[in-house]
Amino acid sequence: MIAVDWGTTRLRAYRLDADGAVLERRDGGEGALSCAGRHAQALAALIAGWDDGAIVLCGMVGARGGWREVPYVDCPADAVQLAAALLPLQDEDLPDRKLWLVPGMADHTRSVPDVMRGEETQVAGLLDTLDAGEHTVCLPGTHSKWVRVESGRITSIATAMTGELFALLRTHSTLGRLMESAQHDRFDAAAFDDGLARSAQPGGFSHHLFGVRSLGLFGRWPDEALPSYLSGLLIGHEVRALAASSSAPVHLLGGDALVDAYARALAALGIASIRHAETLGATGMHRLVRLRGIA
Amino acid sequence: MIAVDWGTTRLRAYRLDADGAVLERRDGGEGALSCAGRHAQALAALIAGWDDGAIVLCGMVGARGGWREVPYVDCPADAVQLAAALLPLQDEDLPDRKLWLVPGMADHTRSVPDVMRGEETQVAGLLDTLDAGEHTVCLPGTHSKWVRVESGRITSIATAMTGELFALLRTHSTLGRLMESAQHDRFDAAAFDDGLARSAQPGGFSHHLFGVRSLGLFGRWPDEALPSYLSGLLIGHEVRALAASSSAPVHLLGGDALVDAYARALAALGIASIRHAETLGATGMHRLVRLRGIA
Repeated sequence: MIAVDWGTTRLRAYRLDADGAVLERRDGGEGALSCAGRHAQALAALIAGWDDGAIVLCGMVGARGGWREVPYVDCPADAVQLAAALLPLQDEDLPDRKLWLVPGMADHTRSVPDVMRGEETQVAGLLDTLDAGEHTVCLPGTHSKWVRVESGRITSIATAMTGELFALLRTHSTLGRLMESAQHDRFDAAAFDDGLARSAQPGGFSHHLFGVRSLGLFGRWPDEALPSYLSGLLIGHEVRALAASSSAPVHLLGGDALVDAYARALAALGIASIRHAETLGATGMHRLVRLRGIA
Repeated sequence: MIAVDWGTTRLRAYRLDADGAVLERRDGGEGALSCAGRHAQALAALIAGWDDGAIVLCGMVGARGGWREVPYVDCPADAVQLAAALLPLQDEDLPDRKLWLVPGMADHTRSVPDVMRGEETQVAGLLDTLDAGEHTVCLPGTHSKWVRVESGRITSIATAMTGELFALLRTHSTLGRLMESAQHDRFDAAAFDDGLARSAQPGGFSHHLFGVRSLGLFGRWPDEALPSYLSGLLIGHEVRALAASSSAPVHLLGGDALVDAYARALAALGIASIRHAETLGATGMHRLVRLRGIA
């Protein structure tokens, strides 16, 4: 089968064997929300030569404005329920292929709803390896997802816009102008830890942000260290608010640099972390296909 | 005398009588940090015809990158100390005029420093009217300042980047894209109050921000109401973190719409507010000139 993780900025396809092991991987350049009407062509070009097996797609490709909108599955739900909600798709640009879209998930259990698209598939790839207790899974990114798993079911979702906030502040703010000399953000562990510690102090997020400027103004950190300080401050606020209730280790899924940063922030709170491979999305799609009984 | 409030984006000049009453006001277009080498010409053009009296300037005009950098006066300091630190200036484009720059203030009393330039002058205009007790003054804006006054001395400064954050999110973020139909941000009191209430809930700032998106996604607030919700959320976080320790009324100085919003947020926390006129900056400069004994 072919497993495709197609997000806002990233298109990644895996060819899997019958047991779900990755035989080959290809990366494409088209974001799922920016190729309206051309999804089938873009996918056909990427997987040229991978001529058999079902094609399963997860991520923003199933969002409004993507290839086709797949309704959210509500929390709580397990992998069987996700598999039952796979949406079949036919497209004349991919004749004779069976396509399936994985639904996103919505959390209406609290006063403000939350959602995810793509991350539920990565968590589905993890579920088999977790015991029946309670688990917290964190998927850092532009929009970090904190997913709660209880007895094999996904029970809640909390999203933090931390990555987007960092990019906004780095690119467009008065803080970003201080950092202009720091062209390539080299990780500065001491500055990151100082930002992390600052997030525990009173004054609030918006006041702490201004501190980045005054620390730079008085030379307390050189301009090149300010991006790491800002990163520690932002991740510290997120982790403190969303992981503080966890005593069990947090499962981390994502790119190495971000996972390193989140593991460091969790460790500062006395919370252990367990890292998982980014290919869990492919594992999850394989699992959903098996549960659905798709050839 | 002539009192000039010259900030990053705003130039405003007042002609005052001997008692400090405003006789006339003029607004110019040049920001203090964007007219390097042309400050004297810009000022001369604005105050043409106001031919006598000392000229006092406060705000970013005295910052690095302004007309001339004036060193910060450290907290705690009273109006006498601020007056003693007025920096005299001569410029050949304004011959025969005495110019004085008001210093900004810095707060090194806590682990992270803080600063202000311009707001100290507005607070100086207020000091005469306050009793010898403790007072909190809030000056909302792009960078809101929370200034503590004790026994007639300015003892601490806390800045929150709330206004800049709102503009960043409104203009450049995924939240801003949801609000594209809300061209003119009309104040929606119910949405503002809902954002305000959200700021009291667990989950943290960055998670609450994502809620703006999911509330819009599920139609819980129409797109046109989202800017007010976001404003309530941001101001709520700021006020909760920086005013929560205050039981006495908070003194508010600023433009009407912002002061209304902050007063509403304070009231939701059970904190009263006292509003002051924006001309307090001119009053403050008049007071500093008198204390310094300038004609």
